[in-house]
Amino acid sequence: MKITIDHLNDMHMEAQNEEGGLIRMDGSTEIGGLEGGFSPMQLLLAGVGGCSAIDIIGILKKQRQDLQDLKVEVDGDRQSKEEYSEFTNIHIKYTFTGDLDPSKVERAINLSLDKYCSVSKTLEKTSDITHSYEIHNN
Amino acid sequence: MKITIDHLNDMHMEAQNEEGGLIRMDGSTEIGGLEGGFSPMQLLLAGVGGCSAIDIIGILKKQRQDLQDLKVEVDGDRQSKEEYSEFTNIHIKYTFTGDLDPSKVERAINLSLDKYCSVSKTLEKTSDITHSYEIHNN
Repeated sequence: MKITIDHLNDMHMEAQNEEGGLIRMDGSTEIGGLEGGFSPMQLLLAGVGGCSAIDIIGILKKQRQDLQDLKVEVDGDRQSKEEYSEFTNIHIKYTFTGDLDPSKVERAINLSLDKYCSVSKTLEKTSDITHSYEIHNN
Repeated sequence: MKITIDHLNDMHMEAQNEEGGLIRMDGSTEIGGLEGGFSPMQLLLAGVGGCSAIDIIGILKKQRQDLQDLKVEVDGDRQSKEEYSEFTNIHIKYTFTGDLDPSKVERAINLSLDKYCSVSKTLEKTSDITHSYEIHNN
C-alpha cells in the first residue's frame, strides 16, 4: 500500500493513493496551519470512524437490516507526552437511520471495534476507544 | 478534536473536520470499494508522511536551509492478525530539492520520527518505521 505526498506551500500538502484519490493536508491551526485540509492527527480520527463504519455497514447488510443512513462523529482527546501528543481517549458516536434491531446494531459495532477494524486495533495501543449510538426510525 | 462522517453510498463516505475541510473515503478495492477515496488504512500512511513532512519543513526553515521542494512516499506492509491486519513495516522515502546540508536533513528526519511526530509515535506501536532520503540540488 503506497501513498505519495507533494508539498504545495507552507504546511499545505496533497496526498495521492494508488487509485488516484487525492486529499489535502495542512498543519493544525495551533502550529500555523491555514485550514487548508486535514491535519495528520485528524486523519487518524477519520480513519477509525470510516473503518468501523465500513465494517458495520457490511455486517448489517449481510443481516438484511434496513440501514438507510449512518453518520459518525469521532472525538479525540490528546495528552502531551514529552515532545509529541497522542490520543488517549477516542469516542465514536454512531447515528443510524432505519428500521433496525438495536441488538444487531450493538453487536455490529462491537464486532468492528473489537475484532475487524484494523485502524481501531492500531489506535487502541495508545487510546481508550469508547462508543455510543442512536437509532432513528423514520 | 472532532471529525464528522457522512455515509454517501456503498462504502463511500465523506469526512469533515472542524475547519470545514472535506475528504472522501471508500473501502479498499479488496473488499468491494469503488476507488471513491482513501481507505481508512491509507489515511494512516498519509498521516505519518504528512506529520513528519510538517516537522521537517519547520525544522529546516528554522535553520534557514534552502528547501525548495519535498515529496514523500510512504509504503506500508500489512500482516493479518486474527480478523484484522495491521501495518508491521512502514517505509518513508523523502525526496528533497534544494541546496541542503545532508547532516541537517538527516537530523531533522530523526527528530521528527523519534520525538515530535504524534502519528509516528502512535503507529510505531505496531510497526517498524524506516526511512530513506535523496537530496536533489537544482
